[in-house]
Amino acid sequence: MKIVTKKETFTNPLYLESGRILEPYELVYETYGELNDERSNAILITHALSGSHHAAGRYEGERKPGWWDGLIGDGKAVDTKKFFVICVNVIGSCYGSTGPMSPMYPSLEPYRFRFPVVTVKDMVKAQRILLDRLGIDRLHAIIGGSMGGMQALRFAVEYPSFARHTIAMAATYATRPWVIAFNKVVQEAIVKDPRFQNGNYDPKDFAEEGFTGLAVGRMAGHISYLSPESMDRKFGRAYVETDGLFELFGKFQVERYLEYNGYGFSKWFDPLSYLYITKAINIFDLSRGHDSLEEALKRIRTDLHLISFQRDLLFMPEEMRHIADVMGAQGQGELVRYYEVESDYGHDAFLVELEKFSDYIADVIGK
Amino acid sequence: MKIVTKKETFTNPLYLESGRILEPYELVYETYGELNDERSNAILITHALSGSHHAAGRYEGERKPGWWDGLIGDGKAVDTKKFFVICVNVIGSCYGSTGPMSPMYPSLEPYRFRFPVVTVKDMVKAQRILLDRLGIDRLHAIIGGSMGGMQALRFAVEYPSFARHTIAMAATYATRPWVIAFNKVVQEAIVKDPRFQNGNYDPKDFAEEGFTGLAVGRMAGHISYLSPESMDRKFGRAYVETDGLFELFGKFQVERYLEYNGYGFSKWFDPLSYLYITKAINIFDLSRGHDSLEEALKRIRTDLHLISFQRDLLFMPEEMRHIADVMGAQGQGELVRYYEVESDYGHDAFLVELEKFSDYIADVIGK
Repeated sequence: MKIVTKKETFTNPLYLESGRILEPYELVYETYGELNDERSNAILITHALSGSHHAAGRYEGERKPGWWDGLIGDGKAVDTKKFFVICVNVIGSCYGSTGPMSPMYPSLEPYRFRFPVVTVKDMVKAQRILLDRLGIDRLHAIIGGSMGGMQALRFAVEYPSFARHTIAMAATYATRPWVIAFNKVVQEAIVKDPRFQNGNYDPKDFAEEGFTGLAVGRMAGHISYLSPESMDRKFGRAYVETDGLFELFGKFQVERYLEYNGYGFSKWFDPLSYLYITKAINIFDLSRGHDSLEEALKRIRTDLHLISFQRDLLFMPEEMRHIADVMGAQGQGELVRYYEVESDYGHDAFLVELEKFSDYIADVIGK
Repeated sequence: MKIVTKKETFTNPLYLESGRILEPYELVYETYGELNDERSNAILITHALSGSHHAAGRYEGERKPGWWDGLIGDGKAVDTKKFFVICVNVIGSCYGSTGPMSPMYPSLEPYRFRFPVVTVKDMVKAQRILLDRLGIDRLHAIIGGSMGGMQALRFAVEYPSFARHTIAMAATYATRPWVIAFNKVVQEAIVKDPRFQNGNYDPKDFAEEGFTGLAVGRMAGHISYLSPESMDRKFGRAYVETDGLFELFGKFQVERYLEYNGYGFSKWFDPLSYLYITKAINIFDLSRGHDSLEEALKRIRTDLHLISFQRDLLFMPEEMRHIADVMGAQGQGELVRYYEVESDYGHDAFLVELEKFSDYIADVIGK
């Protein structure tokens, strides 16, 4: 599989939903496979909150491959022998596309809090502009989960016939207070950590020992990505062997897992990016910019697949089913299909239980 | 209704499950109504993590009455014209019973981290000793929810025929990793807050502006006490009117609620107590000290009522049903009854939706 990682710079302003502009801006993206002569075999993969453009393959010396490597590759469900797959780091993120720690032109100083709030619509708009530059005026498919699913849905509403197939997984039509509450814990933990210094931190300070605010908040995030059942299976009530049950700081395995992942994450993910991206998730509402959810959905011309996981406790099946129901009720039943995956893994199932939906995806996009 | 608040001091050591001792120790408790001459009308109410002995009635100048005031009082489900109701602040708590900020005899210095880990079994043992001192050698009933439900269950196992009726609500037989994970977020947020000073804080410092570590952690707690449905109903996607949607720190109502409650709580609840009590919850396992859960439950002689709430996402109905199933399977079906309350409120339903179970309780204990 041919992997190419590139950065494109755009000097025309990106007009944001808020009315503010981003100028200039950069997008980092990765491609797998080759674009055919007709430019008709491109598939866009959209990533989630902490994801990046590195969706598949393995860089030299890298321990883990891209976040959806099980799905994307030669002979896999998204077959890179047949398709030209593109994944773009969203604006606001910290993997190379313009975000809060990018220099605020013409200065060399980072934006920090001067960075504008960006929305899922803005993320999608930037990707559409990148596709233009690449000479791609039609997508074979868009596929994404969680915030990636929001992008897929937003793409389908704003650019109705740009993609032939749209597969949105583990997402929603509008973020519920339940999810906003989980994000609030992280945001508050970040902002109130003295080492955050009102956004004026030096990222190098976190690279070694991590950043408590983000680590603690991320632990709350991890809860929302799993389910009680998956935690039972993963950890049960197992205690760290060397710890005493009656030691105040003796640990259950689940506690060690949260620490390990929380602090690890905080060493490499930028806290300002975390604030901006969770904000984008919180204010995601497919109906915004349209008269109603119904009107927004009426615009869709792509064939739309909504995949939910039964014990997803972050974006629940009923939310995706609602989209299908609304479309069905207004005569768009032909366009939409709702598929509920049997699972008790939780939200992260879209990253983990690939075997449960990869055949479905292969069927939709063609092998 | 006659309310009496008292403190008792015990100079004999309390032998803890850990092997350590507490000596001396104090218990603060509150009573409602009058003990009859036969001393046969006493009902013990056991409180939850952040609860206290102040279960009912209203002190002079107090804005809110006791935490179960809707249930306990003259003519209410737990009728104080008929019953003598007692609620004891658990050891480890911060409302007057001996806890980590109590002086460590013979010094006048607080224990802080030298306080021993206490368990639900220890809490119950101390209450049993208090009842002895009060000359009560039989309870008409024990009623409690959440950690209070754990105490009720533990009481039933350790003192099998001490109470005639036992009503345990919204609890479990052993705390699952899901709950431990939520507690971990709070514990980590407390311990890593620089103002915690490794436990050497001055509580007065938190009284004014609160204590971020506990506040942030408590926000995660609040998520676990509610449900997505109750948040939809309470807050929906309503935004604070004066805030802009595209302001990074613009707030949804649910965010304001979490801030208000998180910081408010952190002004008056002691962070060390929070660490110790969540530890007690984490290591709660009804089978500990017995060969198995089956053997523990076999000891029960009280009639046991298990009440769960359908959308309790902290202690789930299946966990309480499991207790009933085990008892049923080993021929104790006559003793146990499982009652699932229709509710989508979440864990806090036991504090809020009293109308859904107060008749049930009145039926069990008699009006």
